[in-house]
Amino acid sequence: MTDASFLRSILSPDQVSRTDADRDHHGTDWGTALADASPPDVVVWPESTAEVSEVLAAATERGIPVTPFAAGTGIEGNAVPARGGISLDLTRMDAVLDVRPEDRQVDVDPGVIGADVDEAVAAHGLFFPPLPTSGDMATIGGMIATNASGKRTVKYGKVGDWVREIEVVLADGSVFTAGTRAEKTSSGYDLRDLVVGSEGTLGVVTRATLSLAGRPERTRVGRATFGTLDDATAAAADLVGSGVDVSAVELVDELSARMVNDYVGSDLPEGPTLFLEFQADHGLEQEIEFARAILDAHDPVEVLLDGETDPDEVWKPRHELADAVRAYYPELESLHAGDVAVPIGSFSSIVAHVHEVADAHDAPIPTFGHAGDGNVHFDVLVDPDEEGAVAEAHEIYESIVTEAIDLGGTATGEHGIGQGKREFLPVEHGETGVEAMRAIKDALDPHGTLNPGKVFPE
Amino acid sequence: MTDASFLRSILSPDQVSRTDADRDHHGTDWGTALADASPPDVVVWPESTAEVSEVLAAATERGIPVTPFAAGTGIEGNAVPARGGISLDLTRMDAVLDVRPEDRQVDVDPGVIGADVDEAVAAHGLFFPPLPTSGDMATIGGMIATNASGKRTVKYGKVGDWVREIEVVLADGSVFTAGTRAEKTSSGYDLRDLVVGSEGTLGVVTRATLSLAGRPERTRVGRATFGTLDDATAAAADLVGSGVDVSAVELVDELSARMVNDYVGSDLPEGPTLFLEFQADHGLEQEIEFARAILDAHDPVEVLLDGETDPDEVWKPRHELADAVRAYYPELESLHAGDVAVPIGSFSSIVAHVHEVADAHDAPIPTFGHAGDGNVHFDVLVDPDEEGAVAEAHEIYESIVTEAIDLGGTATGEHGIGQGKREFLPVEHGETGVEAMRAIKDALDPHGTLNPGKVFPE
Repeated sequence: MTDASFLRSILSPDQVSRTDADRDHHGTDWGTALADASPPDVVVWPESTAEVSEVLAAATERGIPVTPFAAGTGIEGNAVPARGGISLDLTRMDAVLDVRPEDRQVDVDPGVIGADVDEAVAAHGLFFPPLPTSGDMATIGGMIATNASGKRTVKYGKVGDWVREIEVVLADGSVFTAGTRAEKTSSGYDLRDLVVGSEGTLGVVTRATLSLAGRPERTRVGRATFGTLDDATAAAADLVGSGVDVSAVELVDELSARMVNDYVGSDLPEGPTLFLEFQADHGLEQEIEFARAILDAHDPVEVLLDGETDPDEVWKPRHELADAVRAYYPELESLHAGDVAVPIGSFSSIVAHVHEVADAHDAPIPTFGHAGDGNVHFDVLVDPDEEGAVAEAHEIYESIVTEAIDLGGTATGEHGIGQGKREFLPVEHGETGVEAMRAIKDALDPHGTLNPGKVFPE
Repeated sequence: MTDASFLRSILSPDQVSRTDADRDHHGTDWGTALADASPPDVVVWPESTAEVSEVLAAATERGIPVTPFAAGTGIEGNAVPARGGISLDLTRMDAVLDVRPEDRQVDVDPGVIGADVDEAVAAHGLFFPPLPTSGDMATIGGMIATNASGKRTVKYGKVGDWVREIEVVLADGSVFTAGTRAEKTSSGYDLRDLVVGSEGTLGVVTRATLSLAGRPERTRVGRATFGTLDDATAAAADLVGSGVDVSAVELVDELSARMVNDYVGSDLPEGPTLFLEFQADHGLEQEIEFARAILDAHDPVEVLLDGETDPDEVWKPRHELADAVRAYYPELESLHAGDVAVPIGSFSSIVAHVHEVADAHDAPIPTFGHAGDGNVHFDVLVDPDEEGAVAEAHEIYESIVTEAIDLGGTATGEHGIGQGKREFLPVEHGETGVEAMRAIKDALDPHGTLNPGKVFPE
């Protein structure tokens, strides 16, 4: 991009930057090395829907790519430009606009941090259930862009399930509202769920109305460690299948437990462990007893479910896990972070497959994730300086993703396709499915302004 | 359409009909008179995805409209041709294909009746929660086409929330699978939720994987009658806001109660009444006591919640209501059946508005619906032979729908736009929203084969 002077007629000087520091920051995320990451030529910080609209209209007119960006907590390069151009940083649009306890809803800006929303609504006895583990850093706009989810998704669903209405700016600068504030609708095409999860390739979300749940009065967190991985995954599937009211079922395998113990000095039993959370206003003890009976049927080595340990203390090792894995193997270039999901009946199979592949390649692959959703996280760790290692890591990664799709599942349960998983889009959806997606992309963004080089294979 | 002989090379003779009886049956539904209903020229009954694909490809090639049809229980002419052509009747594709209790999922054909699915999965201790009141006649395909919902939507969500994967045939005959069997995904655009609720205008659903819930062990049904409509609607909103575990909150107003008493000879108190259902494996008594306290705070005239009356007996008047209204005023031509939905905090306002408009016009408008979802049903009854009556009914209808949209709600909570509500699409979504929908329609069905004359205003 040779000339960005047009931005000066739309934004004030402190809303535009071409410094290397800003360009670098907007050219990276939490994830893997990207095949064709390309730092933006310029970063802009719009402060209103009107400014987003003007920037998009002007960029489209000039054929300049625009990639929305916020906290930069993506894993797959979702918000990292693949073709340079403008990084549209939404973090200055970060207000909680209106809490309506009578509707159990809140209106927010896209750049607001998830935890800030949760804090604002807590005063009204409400909470935003699907917050991801990164919810104290990630923004609502980013969560909407990837249809993120979190540890409580097993009970409450994913971010998209809690989005009622979104204001969307299209590539030509036109603005519309998708969805409704009513809890249900059958009015026209569901543009809301189309934009949710589209990773900023169809439009830019500039405001959202979120639905909220009543903040449970009581929470109990515990964990159960098993002798074998099969016991742990079967217990997770049984818990979910039983209908027990459990708000989180998280798996941490033996290698992951060792890594996190090393990293935070915790004394987690070094075996396959389920972290469990129960939330309710009443009847909590009864649910926990039902859960305990199910866990006991799978020969647990240790069950900590008495409620005497502080919930934050129990959760801590699970929450530190991503950092622990990073610390264990600091060369992020070599880390393939997977997040496949399968039907719950195949959860044991996919976890076993990850371990089989790890054994066959003699590769350390910490495996964890949202067991209750059939969502497995695994990190393929290799030394990039070792000959053939990167290719082998890719082979491992491909084997696991393909297996998940063969089991009726998906290449990504919550991180999105971004740049990192583009090759799997046709594997999962077939050529006709991908063509239908591409037709929609062309219909809504005919000049290809928005976040080019993402989602679709080249 | 002058020549349908091409169908003979695709289908056998017993799969094609041009009789008046078949054409008439496929040219009507349960709803209002339609501005431009046009019975099909020919009706076909495909028996496989391949046959659906061949019919669509051939029809598109010849510029012949195709309108999917099944049970004919729509309200807005959704499945009634507006431009003649082919009625694609899916009722011969009616199998329950595969129940997978380990995944809590079932695969079904589109023409299977909702109640048949529920029966098939009951043997595994499972149920399909979002069945509409018409679930013993309506098909799964039709429910998907309108994103239908029912009395338990307040607890469990709408039909779309329970659809995991659908096989879709596009207008050109190509076939793809949208969604995934995993409980969540962030992989590519959400074509599943785009096709759900699109009323057969984007593609034909030829198979669906549905998610299921554990069949609750205990059910309690009751009702509470109030002195004023405001008390009833406020109690409904409070119940939902309280987080009490209630599986149905249905409103029946005084006029509706009188109509149903006349029709079935029931002895429902003739005042604003909430029908309530509670379902749980345990803890039912406690939830009911919480609910009772909330109801008591709104001065109920009569509360029947002891569990001694047979649930089916309690439900009966509510279930007979639609027929009762029809019987009260048999000229269906004159019945405008509304199903607006608003945020729950505005539920009292919209119900009050319906009654104000009814009073102002001195019109009988029975008002009922899924109070827990903020979803109001109202029937505008007029004598079509009275001068100006039809225009006045439309004025009433428009006032209520517009008020619902102004309150942040939607023109249709569950029936869809069809032909009957096309004028409200731009009112609710704005011109930009409608243009985006039209761009998607043109992208996926460029020749306009599928169900023309629906959803979009002319």
